[in-house]
Amino acid sequence: MVNVIMHGCNGHMGRVVTELIEKDENVQIVAGIDAYTGVQNEYPVFPSIKECTVKADVIIDFAVAQAVDGLLEYAVETGTPVVLCTTGLSAEQIEKVNQASKKVAILKSANMSLGINTLMKLLRTAADILANRGFDIEIVEKHHNQKLDAPSGTALALADCMNQVLDNEYDYTYDRSTVRQKRKHNEIGISAVRGGTIVGEHDVIFAGTDEVIQISHTAYSKAIFAKGAIDAAKYIAGKEAGMYNMADVIG
Amino acid sequence: MVNVIMHGCNGHMGRVVTELIEKDENVQIVAGIDAYTGVQNEYPVFPSIKECTVKADVIIDFAVAQAVDGLLEYAVETGTPVVLCTTGLSAEQIEKVNQASKKVAILKSANMSLGINTLMKLLRTAADILANRGFDIEIVEKHHNQKLDAPSGTALALADCMNQVLDNEYDYTYDRSTVRQKRKHNEIGISAVRGGTIVGEHDVIFAGTDEVIQISHTAYSKAIFAKGAIDAAKYIAGKEAGMYNMADVIG
Amino acid sequence: MVNVIMHGCNGHMGRVVTELIEKDENVQIVAGIDAYTGVQNEYPVFPSIKECTVKADVIIDFAVAQAVDGLLEYAVETGTPVVLCTTGLSAEQIEKVNQASKKVAILKSANMSLGINTLMKLLRTAADILANRGFDIEIVEKHHNQKLDAPSGTALALADCMNQVLDNEYDYTYDRSTVRQKRKHNEIGISAVRGGTIVGEHDVIFAGTDEVIQISHTAYSKAIFAKGAIDAAKYIAGKEAGMYNMADVIG
Amino acid sequence: MVNVIMHGCNGHMGRVVTELIEKDENVQIVAGIDAYTGVQNEYPVFPSIKECTVKADVIIDFAVAQAVDGLLEYAVETGTPVVLCTTGLSAEQIEKVNQASKKVAILKSANMSLGINTLMKLLRTAADILANRGFDIEIVEKHHNQKLDAPSGTALALADCMNQVLDNEYDYTYDRSTVRQKRKHNEIGISAVRGGTIVGEHDVIFAGTDEVIQISHTAYSKAIFAKGAIDAAKYIAGKEAGMYNMADVIG
Repeated sequence: MVNVIMHGCNGHMGRVVTELIEKDENVQIVAGIDAYTGVQNEYPVFPSIKECTVKADVIIDFAVAQAVDGLLEYAVETGTPVVLCTTGLSAEQIEKVNQASKKVAILKSANMSLGINTLMKLLRTAADILANRGFDIEIVEKHHNQKLDAPSGTALALADCMNQVLDNEYDYTYDRSTVRQKRKHNEIGISAVRGGTIVGEHDVIFAGTDEVIQISHTAYSKAIFAKGAIDAAKYIAGKEAGMYNMADVIG
Repeated sequence: MVNVIMHGCNGHMGRVVTELIEKDENVQIVAGIDAYTGVQNEYPVFPSIKECTVKADVIIDFAVAQAVDGLLEYAVETGTPVVLCTTGLSAEQIEKVNQASKKVAILKSANMSLGINTLMKLLRTAADILANRGFDIEIVEKHHNQKLDAPSGTALALADCMNQVLDNEYDYTYDRSTVRQKRKHNEIGISAVRGGTIVGEHDVIFAGTDEVIQISHTAYSKAIFAKGAIDAAKYIAGKEAGMYNMADVIG
Repeated sequence: MVNVIMHGCNGHMGRVVTELIEKDENVQIVAGIDAYTGVQNEYPVFPSIKECTVKADVIIDFAVAQAVDGLLEYAVETGTPVVLCTTGLSAEQIEKVNQASKKVAILKSANMSLGINTLMKLLRTAADILANRGFDIEIVEKHHNQKLDAPSGTALALADCMNQVLDNEYDYTYDRSTVRQKRKHNEIGISAVRGGTIVGEHDVIFAGTDEVIQISHTAYSKAIFAKGAIDAAKYIAGKEAGMYNMADVIG
Repeated sequence: MVNVIMHGCNGHMGRVVTELIEKDENVQIVAGIDAYTGVQNEYPVFPSIKECTVKADVIIDFAVAQAVDGLLEYAVETGTPVVLCTTGLSAEQIEKVNQASKKVAILKSANMSLGINTLMKLLRTAADILANRGFDIEIVEKHHNQKLDAPSGTALALADCMNQVLDNEYDYTYDRSTVRQKRKHNEIGISAVRGGTIVGEHDVIFAGTDEVIQISHTAYSKAIFAKGAIDAAKYIAGKEAGMYNMADVIG
């Protein structure tokens, strides 16, 4: 049984993690940390991690950036590994994370989803085999109609992870309507579809001579980030000091 | 049994039509017309339609633009309906087609595929129901890496047929990477994917609150245009003078 | 502005309807009915509809079967149309519904989703055009791994709605692994995929010579039934007595 | 430049290989072997490989089973590697192949498509990561309406390659309509869709909590087997004696 301190237990993601852990017999929350105490929790909740009197095997963090400094101090002091999911850290804080990781295990990833990280691993393999055998690479991503940026950060991360194994020789193409010309081989087309409440879908297409391989990821809710954090917690519990990420978790 | 004169029988499409008709027990080719006679045909072939001595119920035309004038004269003179699939007609020729259609049945369509024309019919219904109930409309089309234009003419035709039932109030968006803003409701996003030897795929996405309807057409070869022409021939045989198109065939 | 009484306002679906209506400026809830009063509502809540002192244009019902009798009495007495979404009515209750519909407008549908009902309308058109032109019809449905029955009731309803326009001459095939034979034309193959937490996906495939048309519906949450009920409420408000269903709403 | 002897050059696949090699500047056919000489070839053709007077770096074989014995003798005698694509070999012949591979390089694979073999590599990785983290595995395959067997041999091969990395603990389920029960985790559902002229499509679905990864392969023609054979020929030219397969080619 892995014992968890849920840092930021009463925010949206903290509550999703709590719900998922309730159904998982290999992990349990032994304490929560949250300044907001309006939620009725089934575990003791402390207003800050400094005040936490319960020990655990690992901390899952979905709090706010300003709480990260105290979290790192606690982690180093008690030797408790951390799955750090809070985003928007300052450069200074990121440096503190790196320093802390010399003394305690810290896991931090651009995207906590198990699926997206598995996708990246598959894409590296596929790009390596197929791109050099004449297959063209295209990405189509779909998100809800409130999203401001396009293409999605995840689509760019997928393109980047493939470009790395292709010696960074590929350019990204976002629009073909303004030119009248054949596709170059060393480009990755990235199309952004927007509509309704689509949570997030990423299709990567490898198109060759008379055959197409497509690798797709569909998210149905943000619970996938909570699920990934729990998997990460199980992985990092008991690990020695160092910086880890989701690629380590999927192995 | 519908008897057909195959106009342009030894070109690529003429031969595809011939092959498909051989497997169809409700239609047969009684004569072919082609200036090129290097192919061994199972039916009599005449170098031009003027010289054709065989009568038929209908003419399927996949020849060249310059042969269309003679074709129209023959059709009017003999009262033989024509499925006119040759493209690239001059404005003058199109006027001749219109004149001829006052005396004989002529079927002409931007796209001869039964599937694409069925798609258009479905899209008009879907757009009418869904667009006014908050669903966003997006099109993704995929074609081979030798295609020069983007988006495809068919993708634009699909967008146009929906826009018509939406009072032409929708704009088309080809690129979202240059702006940072939410999608407007009255836009149709059109994305063009290019790769390998993909013959042609068109996906139309209606994305609403927590549900998506997608209507897709995939072409595996250009035989679908031949197949559509044969269906059109069966339809137009025996019809009275007038201009017809594939929308009439699918009813 | 359409004024709604939410019958069963504190159940799961009643709360989803409440949330969606809050974002919709053309409709508002003026009263809720629920025996359970543990939820804090922004509108007055009465323990039963008999005790309701607020008048409305329409009632949306997502309550329990035993509350339907009182609901029908109230609807007839006050002339308030009802969108009846409670399932599991007894034969006797269904007869009462039919009787009530002679005096007041009642809308009742096997599936309240706007998308699924639109799909049915599209499928009837597509089957009518394509099945008689040699296209084969197949359905693939996907649901979560807790679902007991296969294929889904919705998949069967989709098959049935197509079979009706095909003179009911098609059989349904659920398994091809036990025979070694070619597909018959007049069969509809229905495959059931089960996995994870998939809410519900239905793909209908029309496969012809070198072209495929696919019409798909994907549900991301059960909110689509709430959304459909609200659309139904707007439709039925002010309508004269009679039985209505979602096909009327989409027109 | 890799010099190829095309064994069975005038059969369907031999001609497809010829066409593809014409467009490839890194490989050329220096001789063809075929008992049938009715085709006009751009390279010298010999009625049997015994009579071939031209030397090459590699032999691509798409002939008939009875020609394989002579082919193996020639390969061993001249030290020319062989890409052996002819199917339906007898047990005795397969033994001869194994013997020959001790003296010369021979490549033989259940499926010559680069795409399907890449898919298998990806599936092994995906199954290893995802199955043990709660994702359910399902396969949907689609083929034309003339196919007699279901599911396809390729679908079973895909299931087998995943089952191998899962300690062969998974059962295959072909039909869920006859039972009313939840899906077990350690099963792979395999659904077979049949319709039209679909060449071959295989979707492998990994469905987890609120996310789905799908890996798909679509074939548009049998040219993919010719393409794979050419890639294999480039790979095996110059290799030492041994048995090779497509997994070696993709690395």
